Amino acid sequence: SVNLERLKKYIDASANIGTIPGNGVSRLALSKEDKEMRLIFEDWMKEAGLKVRVDDFGNMIGRREGKENKSPVVLGSHLDTQPNGGRYDGILGVLSALEVVNSLNDSNIETLRPIEIVNFTNEEGARFEPPMLGSGGTSECLDKQYVYNQKDTEGRRFEEELEEIGYKGIPANRIKNIFSFIELHIEQGPILESEGKSIGAVNGIQGMAWLEVKVTGESDHAGTTPINHRRDALVATSKMIVGIEEIGRKTNAKTTVGRLTMRPNVANCIPEEVIFSVDIRHDSNTKKVESIRMITELLNKLAVEQNVSINIEPLWDIDATIFNPYLVDLIKNTAEELEYEVMDIISGAGHDAKYINSIGPTAMIFVPSVNGKSHHESELTHDKDIEKGANTLLNTVYQLSMM
Amino acid sequence: SVNLERLKKYIDASANIGTIPGNGVSRLALSKEDKEMRLIFEDWMKEAGLKVRVDDFGNMIGRREGKENKSPVVLGSHLDTQPNGGRYDGILGVLSALEVVNSLNDSNIETLRPIEIVNFTNEEGARFEPPMLGSGGTSECLDKQYVYNQKDTEGRRFEEELEEIGYKGIPANRIKNIFSFIELHIEQGPILESEGKSIGAVNGIQGMAWLEVKVTGESDHAGTTPINHRRDALVATSKMIVGIEEIGRKTNAKTTVGRLTMRPNVANCIPEEVIFSVDIRHDSNTKKVESIRMITELLNKLAVEQNVSINIEPLWDIDATIFNPYLVDLIKNTAEELEYEVMDIISGAGHDAKYINSIGPTAMIFVPSVNGKSHHESELTHDKDIEKGANTLLNTVYQLSMM
Ligand SMILES: NC(=O)NCCC(=O)O
Ligand SMILES: NC(=O)NCCC(=O)O
Repeated sequence: SVNLERLKKYIDASANIGTIPGNGVSRLALSKEDKEMRLIFEDWMKEAGLKVRVDDFGNMIGRREGKENKSPVVLGSHLDTQPNGGRYDGILGVLSALEVVNSLNDSNIETLRPIEIVNFTNEEGARFEPPMLGSGGTSECLDKQYVYNQKDTEGRRFEEELEEIGYKGIPANRIKNIFSFIELHIEQGPILESEGKSIGAVNGIQGMAWLEVKVTGESDHAGTTPINHRRDALVATSKMIVGIEEIGRKTNAKTTVGRLTMRPNVANCIPEEVIFSVDIRHDSNTKKVESIRMITELLNKLAVEQNVSINIEPLWDIDATIFNPYLVDLIKNTAEELEYEVMDIISGAGHDAKYINSIGPTAMIFVPSVNGKSHHESELTHDKDIEKGANTLLNTVYQLSMM
Repeated sequence: SVNLERLKKYIDASANIGTIPGNGVSRLALSKEDKEMRLIFEDWMKEAGLKVRVDDFGNMIGRREGKENKSPVVLGSHLDTQPNGGRYDGILGVLSALEVVNSLNDSNIETLRPIEIVNFTNEEGARFEPPMLGSGGTSECLDKQYVYNQKDTEGRRFEEELEEIGYKGIPANRIKNIFSFIELHIEQGPILESEGKSIGAVNGIQGMAWLEVKVTGESDHAGTTPINHRRDALVATSKMIVGIEEIGRKTNAKTTVGRLTMRPNVANCIPEEVIFSVDIRHDSNTKKVESIRMITELLNKLAVEQNVSINIEPLWDIDATIFNPYLVDLIKNTAEELEYEVMDIISGAGHDAKYINSIGPTAMIFVPSVNGKSHHESELTHDKDIEKGANTLLNTVYQLSMM
């Protein structure tokens, strides 16, 4: 079994890079904090005897050789965070993977298959949209130039920032011929906690889509322009946001407007242009499509009513994912043998496992999030659950690595 | 009468500093464009034989001596613009004042009273809020430290930026013992045009107030948090914005939410905090107060309903202004003698004349805005109206300077 104390030491050390008030972490992808974290993680991997390589998307891979030159057992997650993220989202999966290696080393266990642990680049989608660019690129689900050309809000390109922090590696270093990929992650939702379980065997991920909406009215003077002469892009947008929430309630989709900027953004100017994102999720693909259709219809209707023009751009759209049933069962059985309370669960959040699932057998292990919270500095997973999660990962990986 | 061709040359030259597409100008207060404009305007004043001085708020004053050392006849406006402003808002008043001096010079006219022309700092309130900091400071309507401590969105202080561009002068240089202050300005509304008049004799300015509202919910994951578990600050804000517009329609106030920023502002995060401005204007002070009360009540009620917390801060509140009736009449009579179509009008926009009115007899001359538009690059005033406005200014100022 794993050494919880050692794992916690790594977690605490990682939470020192990009610390924000309230016990949180802000470590945006390819930022200087991300670079610092990567350098330290590289040291940790080397201390664990791993051979480190970096692929052309900045994904970091540490390899522990097996007795035979078979396809590798891969595990990992991401070290980037939201701007007000927590200490566990992504990080727990990467550092538990490291702990799996350290535990095998402690017991001098030589596995049949090589083991590779991974830190994927820009999973959060907070700095560069959409999420999971590193795993999406390496799995060829996303086009390389598309990934390289994504820009942050300051207009800086993914590729340039990758070069800037010194983590642009080569295609030959990508993970490949994967025997299995297992990602441990915090649930980020309330289900495990409310059901009193410590381990979720993740069956799949719900479908999700992002739209970008641009609403264009006309600026004018706030003090001289009668209300019914206005083409106010923000008033129109506000009606849209209220309507998007109502559609979410109706279709049981989760709908969110999380990003919004406007121009000229001056107190005495009528807003001319508003740009906002819409995040739409549903575990049924049909209902996801239906929700997108309803939202698009409503937005177009409101634009006409409010005398503004509108442009709706799809930014991201992935169907629901079904993980490898054999691996899901293996996780469940392993957790049960360890006498942990385990349940089947569907992920509400996207994960690197989504894209890796397209190039090899994949599954995930969830551990509970207190109050279901994440993407917030109050995000928390209890030590006992961390230990159970890491032990489930260790024992699952061990079995796979001996096959 | 004035030389329209010369005046237009100055206007065109000024529009070259901070030009933006669509014939507009972006010359934010105390920016490098503002500095460039100031240096050129200083040259123009010196070429016109004026003695230039700068006060402690960066207001620039050019003085033409009179035969007697009497209190001065003052005229002017501002050279700063909105981020997508036009070529005339403020600028026309400053350059027409310069043209008055040049016209007097052409005819070798020596006036009894000194004439002072002014460029006030940060009239727009676009970079440093609230508007009219230069005239508010010099008239002591606003506290000096309050003005100095105002910050732009990047956190830069007014005082530091004043020093940075080299325009922090001394208190002794302020305009004082004003015999009269006359500001020529574009109307920025549709009334003169729709009434077919070229000159507005401005009787006063409507009352105006700015609030800053902070709505605080709680961030969480967009994909995992059911809608009825959320405390979404942006959904709450959207309902507020819709309600603020409805109150404007009901009370006949002009209500505008022109500035809005949010945190964390990431597509897959539920918005935690939204900060927005509310601009409220009414020509009746009672109704302005009533509108503020209704908006405050509505916002508090919606905050409770939406389970978010709210903080409402007054940023600015000025009552309706009544200009000096003698000066208003003088402007009207002067325009009529010149056989221009003139009418009484109330200003919907705030102006430096508002604050200068508290330290000396003040009035304003309006010229028409095509389609009533301003705070937009399509802002336009026709040449014939510019000429009539400048001639009205010249003849009014001449009479005052001989008293
Ligand atoms: N795990 C996680 O929060 N991933 C970000 C991608 C998403 O929005 O679901
Ligand atoms: N003239 C003008 O647009 N001034 C800005 C102050 C205001 O918002 O009215």
